[in-house]
Order: sequence, then C-alpha cells, then structure tokens
Amino acid sequence: MTSLENNWQKIASAKRDALAASIPEEYRVPQQQLPLESQLDVTIWPKESGWFTAEELEITDSTALQILEKIASKSWTSEKVTRAFCKRAAAAQQLTNCLSDAFFEEAIESAKALDDHLNKTGQVVGPLHGLPISLKDNFNIKGKDSTVGFTSLVNQPAEYNATLVDMLEKLGAVRYCKTNVPTAMMIAESVNNVFGRTVNPLNRKVTSGGSSGGESALLAFGGSPLGVGTDIGGSLRIPAACTGIFTLRPSAGRFTTQRCRSGLAGQEAVASVNGPMGKTLEDITFYSKTIVDAQPWLLDPKVLPIPWREVEVKKKLKVAVLWNDGICLPTPPVTRALKETAESLKKAGHEVVEWDPKLHAKTLEILGRMFVADGGKSVEALLAPTNEPYRPEMTMYKEAKELGVSDMWKLHLERSEIQRQYLEQWMSYGDLDAILAPTTPYASVTHGDFKYVGYTGVYNVVDYSAASFPTGIIVDKAKDQLATDIKTQSEYCKGARNSYDPGLLHGHPVSLQLVAKRLEEEKVLAMTAVVLEALKSGSKAHA
Amino acid sequence: MTSLENNWQKIASAKRDALAASIPEEYRVPQQQLPLESQLDVTIWPKESGWFTAEELEITDSTALQILEKIASKSWTSEKVTRAFCKRAAAAQQLTNCLSDAFFEEAIESAKALDDHLNKTGQVVGPLHGLPISLKDNFNIKGKDSTVGFTSLVNQPAEYNATLVDMLEKLGAVRYCKTNVPTAMMIAESVNNVFGRTVNPLNRKVTSGGSSGGESALLAFGGSPLGVGTDIGGSLRIPAACTGIFTLRPSAGRFTTQRCRSGLAGQEAVASVNGPMGKTLEDITFYSKTIVDAQPWLLDPKVLPIPWREVEVKKKLKVAVLWNDGICLPTPPVTRALKETAESLKKAGHEVVEWDPKLHAKTLEILGRMFVADGGKSVEALLAPTNEPYRPEMTMYKEAKELGVSDMWKLHLERSEIQRQYLEQWMSYGDLDAILAPTTPYASVTHGDFKYVGYTGVYNVVDYSAASFPTGIIVDKAKDQLATDIKTQSEYCKGARNSYDPGLLHGHPVSLQLVAKRLEEEKVLAMTAVVLEALKSGSKAHA
Repeated sequence: MTSLENNWQKIASAKRDALAASIPEEYRVPQQQLPLESQLDVTIWPKESGWFTAEELEITDSTALQILEKIASKSWTSEKVTRAFCKRAAAAQQLTNCLSDAFFEEAIESAKALDDHLNKTGQVVGPLHGLPISLKDNFNIKGKDSTVGFTSLVNQPAEYNATLVDMLEKLGAVRYCKTNVPTAMMIAESVNNVFGRTVNPLNRKVTSGGSSGGESALLAFGGSPLGVGTDIGGSLRIPAACTGIFTLRPSAGRFTTQRCRSGLAGQEAVASVNGPMGKTLEDITFYSKTIVDAQPWLLDPKVLPIPWREVEVKKKLKVAVLWNDGICLPTPPVTRALKETAESLKKAGHEVVEWDPKLHAKTLEILGRMFVADGGKSVEALLAPTNEPYRPEMTMYKEAKELGVSDMWKLHLERSEIQRQYLEQWMSYGDLDAILAPTTPYASVTHGDFKYVGYTGVYNVVDYSAASFPTGIIVDKAKDQLATDIKTQSEYCKGARNSYDPGLLHGHPVSLQLVAKRLEEEKVLAMTAVVLEALKSGSKAHA
Repeated sequence: MTSLENNWQKIASAKRDALAASIPEEYRVPQQQLPLESQLDVTIWPKESGWFTAEELEITDSTALQILEKIASKSWTSEKVTRAFCKRAAAAQQLTNCLSDAFFEEAIESAKALDDHLNKTGQVVGPLHGLPISLKDNFNIKGKDSTVGFTSLVNQPAEYNATLVDMLEKLGAVRYCKTNVPTAMMIAESVNNVFGRTVNPLNRKVTSGGSSGGESALLAFGGSPLGVGTDIGGSLRIPAACTGIFTLRPSAGRFTTQRCRSGLAGQEAVASVNGPMGKTLEDITFYSKTIVDAQPWLLDPKVLPIPWREVEVKKKLKVAVLWNDGICLPTPPVTRALKETAESLKKAGHEVVEWDPKLHAKTLEILGRMFVADGGKSVEALLAPTNEPYRPEMTMYKEAKELGVSDMWKLHLERSEIQRQYLEQWMSYGDLDAILAPTTPYASVTHGDFKYVGYTGVYNVVDYSAASFPTGIIVDKAKDQLATDIKTQSEYCKGARNSYDPGLLHGHPVSLQLVAKRLEEEKVLAMTAVVLEALKSGSKAHA
C-alpha cells in the first residue's frame, strides 16, 4: 500500500510522465538541441536552434488571421499547420512546462478531415476552419482530464465537452493541447502540485503569470496561434501582460463558460469569464466576433443574446488614467508606459484625465471575501482525497472561515453598492470612454513574487470589459530605476518595490489595460486599436 | 411602556390610521355611498355610485396611451388626470384596501408643474409626461416608508429614491401612491400584519393575488392607468392573472431594480425583477420600450445595455402548450382557456405542440431551497424588533435551516444545470417560439387558498420572459365543473380542486401566460398580440 502522504506525489509524477510520453517522438527536441538552462529568453530558440524548417517557422510565426486565409485559399493544409504547431507546442512544453495535456495525433486526424472536407466541397466548415486553438486546462474535453492543478482530479476524464469546445469544433477549429494553470486557478502564477511551474519564454526566471499562464507561455513561444483562457481576478490579463500578448476580458455573459471546470465551483458573487489570448489585436477581435456570431445563447442560458455590434469610435476619446490605485504603485516601467501612452493619446488629439481610485480598496476587500466565502471548502475537498498539501500561495483558503448564506447575502449587497458607486463615478466624468490602467504593477516578476492582483481584480468585481495589450514599450534598466524618495502605499507596494529587478527585466515588454464599461467588448477592442495607433504615431514622432 | 407583545399591533394600527388620514377629505367616499360589504364585484361601483363625474370616469377608464395623447395635445391637463386618479385610487383603497401609501397633494403639485412646463415650452418633459403611475410598496421614495408588510419598517422613511423612481420622474410620470404587498413580498396573496389584506375588486371574496396584489387591485378597479410591480416567483403574473390585467415579467437585467426594498435582501440565486402592469398590452409594451429607451444601464450596473429591439413575428408561430406541469392540474376554466387558445392558434395557422414538463418538479424544488437558503434569517430579522409574529403563510421561513456558502455553491450548480437542461429541451423542439401555459391553476381563489405558484416560479428559475394576459374567456359555472374521474397529482392538486368554486368565480376572467426565452421581452409582447388576435378571430368564428 502506498502511504497516503506519498499518494499525491506519485499521482503527480505519473501524470507528468504520461504527459511527456504522450508527445510523439518526432516532436521531442533532442537533448543536445535544447538550450542551456541558463538561457533565459527562449523565444529566439525556434529560429536559432535549426530544429524547425523554414516553413514551420513561417506557419507558426503567422497570425491566426493569416493562417485562416492560407488554409481557406488552400495555400496551406490544416494538417501542415497543425503539425507545425504541435511541434512548436512540444518544444514550448520542453522549454517552459506550459502544457497540461497534448493530443497531437487526434489533432492531426481532425485537421486531415477538415482538409478533406475543403477539398471535396470547396467550402470551409466555418470561420475557424483548420486553425489549431489551444485551451486552458479547465475546458472540459470528453475523455480528457481537467485537473486544474489538483492531484485528486488526475485520471478523472471529463464526461462531456465544455460548450465552447463543441462550438469551436463546429466552427472548424482544431484542438491539440491544453495548458497549465495554478492550483484551482486561484494564483497569479502558473504553478501547482501536479505539473509544477510554467516559466516565461521571454525570460525563464520570471513568471508567465496566472492563472492562464500555460496559455500565455505557449503563445509567447509561438506554440499556438490563438488560445482561450479564463479570468476571475485577472487570470487572462495578468499572463497576457507578463508575456506581451493581447487578451480581452469580456463581461460575464458574452462568451460561454458552461460545463467548464471551475476552481471554486458554484461561486457566483464574482463571475469567471473566458476570453481569447492572441498575438495581435485583430486575432482576438476576430475570435470574439466569431464566437458571438455563433449565438452561444442558444446553447448556454447564461449567455446574453447580444449580437456582435460594430462600433464607430469617437474621433476624440476621453480617457481617464489610473496612475496608481492607492494601494500598490506600479513599478517604474509600467508608470513610464502609462505616461508615454497618455502623452501619445494627447498628441493624437484625445482628452486625457485622471481616474480617482477612491473606490478600489473597498472593491478589492470585497473581492477577497467573496473568493473565500465557502471557508475554502471547495479547495479543501479537492486536496483531501490525495492528502495533497496546500501550496504556500493558497494559505488564504486554508485559513478562511465559511460564511452562512445570510452573511453572504449581506456581502452581495456590499458588492452591488460598490458596483453602483463605480458606475456613478464613471458617469460623473461626463462622456468618459475608457480607463487606461496598469494591467499589473509589474512588467513581470521573478517566480513567487507576483503578489498584487488589484489592478485587474477591481474590474472583475464591477464586471467591466477590459483589454490588456503590449504597449511596444520595453523595460529599460537605464530609464526604469526605482526612485528613492517614494512613499510606499502598503505592504503590497513595498513587495513590488523589493522584487523589482530592472536588470533582470531589461527588454521585457510592458503591457497596459484599457477598460470600458460593462458589456462594451466591441468598444474596448476598437479603442485599443486607437491607443495602439496613437502609440505608433507617438513613437514615430519621438524617433 | 408598551409591552413588546403589543408593539407591532399598535404600530400597525397607527400606520393604518395615518394612511387613512393622509387621504384628503374630498377623496373620501361618504359612508352612505359605499357599497354594501356583500357586494362582491365593486368594479361597477365607480359608475353606479354617482360619486364620479362623467369626465372623471372618462379619464380613469382610459388607457395610459390615450391619456398621454390627451395630455400632450392639451385636451386634458395632467392636474385633471392626476386628481381623477387620486380620487379613484382613494375609492379603491376604501373598497379593496390596496394602498400602502398615498401622497395625492404632492402628486397634484407635480402635475401642475408639468402642465406649466408644457404650457410654457410647448414641449413634454418626456414620453410619460403627466401620467400618474402607481408603484408597488417596495419602490423606495425618499422620505416615504417601504414597509413591505413589516411593522419594524414602519416610520423608516427611505433615504433615497429607487433608480426607477428617479427615471420615471425624469420621463414625466407623476407618482401618487404605493400599493400593498404581502409580508416580505413572499406570499401569493397580498396580506400582511401592517395593512392587512387586499381584496379583489372583481370579487371581494377572492384574492387579487400577490405579491403585487395591491397594484393589481388598484388597476382592476380603475384607480391607476399603469403600475409597476415585481416578480421573483410569480409576483407580477399571479396578481395580473387574478384580476384580468396585463403584465410582463422581464428577464433579469432589462429594467432596473436598483435601490428597491427587497424581502430577501441580497438574495441572488434567483433574480427579482420588476415590470409593468396595465389594462392593455399596448400600455405595457409602451412602458417597456420607454424604460429601455431611457438607457437604465447608465444608472444601474445590473441592467444590460440591450436597446429596445423591434421584432417581426413569424407568420406561423410554433407554440408548445403546457397543459399541466405534472404537479397541479389547472382548474377547469384555466384548462378550457388553454384549449380554446390552442384551437384559436391552430385556426389562425400556427403550429401547436405539447410541452413536456419533465423538468418542472426539480426546478421548483430548487426554487424553494433558494428562497430559504438563509434559514429565514432575513425575515426573522424584520419580525424580531417589534415581536411581530410569523404569518401562517410564512412557516417555511420559520422552519428553514440556514445553508453554509459551500452548500449554496452546490445549489447554484444544481440550478445552473436545470437552466441548461431547460434550454436544451426548448432547442430540441426545433424552432419553438413560445410556451403557452397557465399563469396559475386558478382563475382566482378565495382568500387564503392560493397555494401553488409552480406555473410562474419555474420561469423565474430559468429567467425567461413571460407575459400574463386575460384571454377574454371567463369562468362559466355551466362549462367549468370539476370532472369527478380526475386523478390528482399532488397535495397542491387536491387543494386546488377542493378550493375551486365555479359558482363563486362565475364571470371571473381567465388569464394565461406566454413564455419566450431569456431576454426576449420584445418578442413575447409581440407574440402576445398575435395570440390575442387569434383569440379574437377564434371567438368571432365561434359566435
């Protein structure tokens, strides 16, 4: 008999072995071609290693829209594209530990079937015809695990597909892998007791963020043209920002979350949502429109029957900058990105004002209480069967005290009141279009040091639409030194200062977050294009 | 010192006296002109009593749309209209005990100001210019009580307006009274320990329903051209059906419920919504469009930014009839109304199929658990301060055991799964447009006998849009006798049979409910017009 104490470790170890074994021989990077452990930026490895063909590199360096066009016009087969991404994803796994599942042979079969269909009928099956799409671990796929980082959920294959998985298949997408997450998807880095830690391909000493950090690592490495993650406190935006990719956190009810695995199943006081992660704004916009056009409200009663609405963005936007939230000052490169972006917006003729973060502390305090309202019982119930220990990042769940429903109802009232006040404040700015905010206080941060999620979490509470985008600005150790005369705002703020290492982060992309009101997904994406345009013009003028 | 035991009764008695005293002398019906207590149908009294002028009768017998037109065209002043409704509402109060508050003098002042505005500017202030609108007791109005039937809430004036109250004022409506409800708005009849019982003006021996039963009694008596009620288990539709008026239960997020008093504050597992109650379908449709056009999502973050969508109804609708829900057979006139309506629809070229109620029992069982998930603590906290006893209808709240949040999360999962299954069933019918269902098993029922709310409650759980409408069919004691060979389905079913009294109900209007999917308010209203048209043609063909 295995002792209970060792159970979880054996399960985890076997699961990792099985994952490694599931990757076909041809996609395993030979040991001698792997980069040294000391190589921090491995995004350059696919090109420098010589392990990929020129065509494989061309395919995997393309955007999702380019790939779809090439497949639809029969320049590339879906099989060829899928093989290229399986290979690059396999390398990503070996270099960053970003996957939780790989089913490349199935994927290639699906791709072949799609190619056959196109050849026979001359028609694509749908707007995502032939495109490999990677999925965060919690998207249930019949017959496959969704462990969300718990050893007790290993070898508990899903009995049904998540509704989104069915939809993506119908739209023509090819599924080929699932990506790693933190335990219960409730840590801002992607680390758990089953698969261990995912690292950032841009700098393996820093985190790719969480909880959709397997996804962000895979995308930043080039192992996926488009992925889907989830967000309940920043889990799309944080990993996107840590890796310099694009994401949209939609308001609840725009995309379907039905039949996905949740870390806190049945928790509804703050909604978990899912959204696309991609290499370009155009890719995530296309995905968003495609999903909404497929009318998910006919399958998932929680989805709102709001069609995709083309928006015309005002010539002169009014943007409020959240310089800091009064709790945790952004690190220097993030503040510089805010300044340069605000300047570029002004130069482009937009109006820039300041957002007063007076409601943020209260909002975040409420968010924290909602996460642990069950006294951490959900997490405990998933740890107990294998005697899996709490990770140190999960102590809040261990220490939490369960509320009764009566107190929970009172908490709902507090949350609704802060939502009301936040909207009231927004409306008090007149015709405010967006808030420009840090996505996180960090460009990224060394493993274990991602402590503050307040810049994202506040928008989960009010359920606003938000896009995280790379500004094109990168950390510059010359420009981005810590000022010595700053008064820190909290322990979080001190921590962010202490963990900040401009030398380590030199060259790392810096992202920001653009926030629009609830259910303004189309508008926030369109406005992000305007901000990017302004940044482009701004940097040209500067150059 | 008053003993605690008597406290609540003294508070209630004083509140009732204050309400009576608040009605200006001129609007009090002289004792000798009041109908005898034995007169059951008092809707004929306004005309037969001679207490009203011909013009007052003309005004108060008009529809909301007619009144708005007359005011806008200066045929009537808002003052004249408001005075007429104050007078008729005062009579309604004396004859049916339907009000919880009256502020007629303020109303007349508001009306005068609106008239001045129109005279000076030639413009109406908004689409509801000058129209008196009655409000259910729980709509907070600054400075006025919202007791929702609890003595502990007497003389606790609201510190702010409900968002809808502000909106209605801005749109030009005149507020003049609030209407009675049951304790906590959680009983299907309108009875509480503060104001006592509201009776049905069509038949004072039967209930006007609940919880918006003060509103329905007032409207059915002619004391309001348009009212607003709320619905968490049938509270709009049940009273509308009991009195033969129209209502729309919208899906959550269409109209604002912000800053209203709730009976179960902070309860969110099933949403409370509000909606219009009116004498015509056109009136409630106009109200609905007007509210949505005013963009309540800019004031209330829970309102969805879905504009009013004009719909074109298919020539041939597919309607599924819910003959019975497997729990409580409708009483004979309701079943006959279903049959005649189904026949009329078929004759008019629509497709009629049957709805299988296989999910109803489970859905209702979940609803019951959600209402008492706090162990009745909300209700207890409102009874305790004045030592007010539980009403016999409220025993479920007294006996309930509080859930912990962990169990509540599990209950959410059950509810979400049943929502998923209900939609799946709907979609399995192909292009199903609507369900035609009883609103209640009863046409109405003697006081204290309204026990079964399953026909309405199921649609609160799935949050579908539903209209209750009078079919034009009336109870006929010759046609509507109980069959003797029926096998009852439950204790509810037995109760409905036992309380059924065709002699008492002879002539009472019979309503039905048309249900569309979630957030299809425009469609369900437009389809109700089609059903009414079919019924009209059907009855003509029959005549």
